Amino acid sequence: MHDIIELPAFELESGAVLDPARLAYKTYGELNSARTNAVLFPTWFAGDHTSNEWLIGPGKALDPRTYFIIVPNLFGNGLSSSPSNTPAPHDRSSFPSVTIRDNVRAQHHLITEHFGIERLALVLGCSMGALQTYQWAVSHPDMVERALPFCGAPRTSPHNAVFIESLRATLTLDAAYEGGRYRSQPLGGIRAFARVYAGWGFSQAFYWEETYRQLGFASLEEFLTGFWESNFIDQDANDLLAMLRTWQDADVSTTPGLEGDIERALGSIRAKVLALPAEKDLYFPPEDEMRAVRHIPHGEVRVIPGIWGHLTGGGANPVDAAFIDAAIRHILASPVTLAPART
Amino acid sequence: MHDIIELPAFELESGAVLDPARLAYKTYGELNSARTNAVLFPTWFAGDHTSNEWLIGPGKALDPRTYFIIVPNLFGNGLSSSPSNTPAPHDRSSFPSVTIRDNVRAQHHLITEHFGIERLALVLGCSMGALQTYQWAVSHPDMVERALPFCGAPRTSPHNAVFIESLRATLTLDAAYEGGRYRSQPLGGIRAFARVYAGWGFSQAFYWEETYRQLGFASLEEFLTGFWESNFIDQDANDLLAMLRTWQDADVSTTPGLEGDIERALGSIRAKVLALPAEKDLYFPPEDEMRAVRHIPHGEVRVIPGIWGHLTGGGANPVDAAFIDAAIRHILASPVTLAPART
Repeated sequence: MHDIIELPAFELESGAVLDPARLAYKTYGELNSARTNAVLFPTWFAGDHTSNEWLIGPGKALDPRTYFIIVPNLFGNGLSSSPSNTPAPHDRSSFPSVTIRDNVRAQHHLITEHFGIERLALVLGCSMGALQTYQWAVSHPDMVERALPFCGAPRTSPHNAVFIESLRATLTLDAAYEGGRYRSQPLGGIRAFARVYAGWGFSQAFYWEETYRQLGFASLEEFLTGFWESNFIDQDANDLLAMLRTWQDADVSTTPGLEGDIERALGSIRAKVLALPAEKDLYFPPEDEMRAVRHIPHGEVRVIPGIWGHLTGGGANPVDAAFIDAAIRHILASPVTLAPART
Repeated sequence: MHDIIELPAFELESGAVLDPARLAYKTYGELNSARTNAVLFPTWFAGDHTSNEWLIGPGKALDPRTYFIIVPNLFGNGLSSSPSNTPAPHDRSSFPSVTIRDNVRAQHHLITEHFGIERLALVLGCSMGALQTYQWAVSHPDMVERALPFCGAPRTSPHNAVFIESLRATLTLDAAYEGGRYRSQPLGGIRAFARVYAGWGFSQAFYWEETYRQLGFASLEEFLTGFWESNFIDQDANDLLAMLRTWQDADVSTTPGLEGDIERALGSIRAKVLALPAEKDLYFPPEDEMRAVRHIPHGEVRVIPGIWGHLTGGGANPVDAAFIDAAIRHILASPVTLAPART
């Protein structure tokens, strides 16, 4: 089970107000008395707190015997405020646009007001979790000691946005979607959405080498249905679309005060940053983080080698999971002096 | 204008018979008296003979003052036999599956019976044109002196097939498609199809760098509509699906007698082969041809550098067009001794 905090009259960047916004989260381990062992680990697209649990446990880098790990659920994921669980006037397709920064602001409230934490030993996350990680480092440079974004970027690239656009176009094409006022889920649209996603989620070589067999699928068609369709078929269509919007709009440079200046945004990060793009990620390619990290004072990129593409960060491949766990262990062991603030 | 030959009682690999099959083609230049200057240049997905004309002309490698260039239209493209132009019982969604080899067999009839040509100085093509080029070299090793496939492969990879699958799922999701018996084109489906295609057609960096501005589009959204939707919106949906099927099934190793043995298929090629994959092609990545060409006795790969992705082979970027033209010039100038047949 998870916990929920309510944020009364929570004003979004769009100006819309969720009253209350509900932020679902789960914690692992105990906050120490000095409140210095907190790790924040936001979730990815269409995932929830359980999606992160493969990286948490005794003996792992994120060991709950040592760290207090907080996993907040992304708005739109069906547990935090979402189209599927919000009453009128913000229900269903009338749910307002939510940004990555809206997520970060709600999480900031949880961290500071609810837990009384002033410093985070680490913020980390995969994909949309990485988008949140970067935003944390930009919005709260004095709070984030370390950041480990994996399979992500500080902003969604135009190409990535085209991919998102194709997902939206496909899902909403289903007549059963009915402009978001559907009586039952547009399952045909969700299935087609899953097939579009399938080509992007893993690399070309992953399919050539039939690596899906490692996941227990005997054929490509079985993989498309048993893995990809299954991954999305129980999701609410409006929830998926809400998360897509959050993803598509992500950009640390649009943080108020930074005037769209990406170099300034990245230069303002004081945390030690270890970015882990995946070698063959087709929509968050390593180039995104390589060009970004040049501007981060304490930034480093380590490319995760291999053919699992974006799903390198998904936890299903033990080799990749070990790589990521080792990187987390490394950054947590590194002494931290926050970089000087740039003026 | 173009010409058409009719092939009476043309039996497809599926067993279905088109009576007649109609093969539309256009020629450029004159066949010399020794019949040694013929070049065959098949077309790509959703293109026609005019799609190839950017590579043909006085002063170009494919100079019609020197070469007799034959451009056959792909079955399914609306000019050769297609769902949209074939009478019942093979009309519309009842149009039978057509393979790359069916295309090659019809073209072989055109080349040998109609033109009396015994040797082709060069076969070349882009994308599905490259699939046909490889099939020609495997099916008629004694006829093809040179082969220049670009942005293609000798078979459609499983990942490429997943991309194709997503296009099919998207197009047929439109309720207006009506199982292929639509009264008017499923335009919503075609538009969504175009948006799925958009992410695959160019590289990540092409979008990052807003290279679409070179094509005259001022914004990403304008590019998605003005380039991508425009490219497909006048196509017949069943025609698109027929060509997708041909593409998805492409595999030189399934040529009768080769028993699925790709190395044997490639080893049987006697032509000099110069394969030109594009560096950032997302669905015919260079790896496809690098692994293939190892098995071709006279095979060579030259990767076309740059960020135009699959559309590197589309002719819109002058730098890429010059690279391809130079490669054609190079291979045409190379003396040819057919490789010994392998036994």
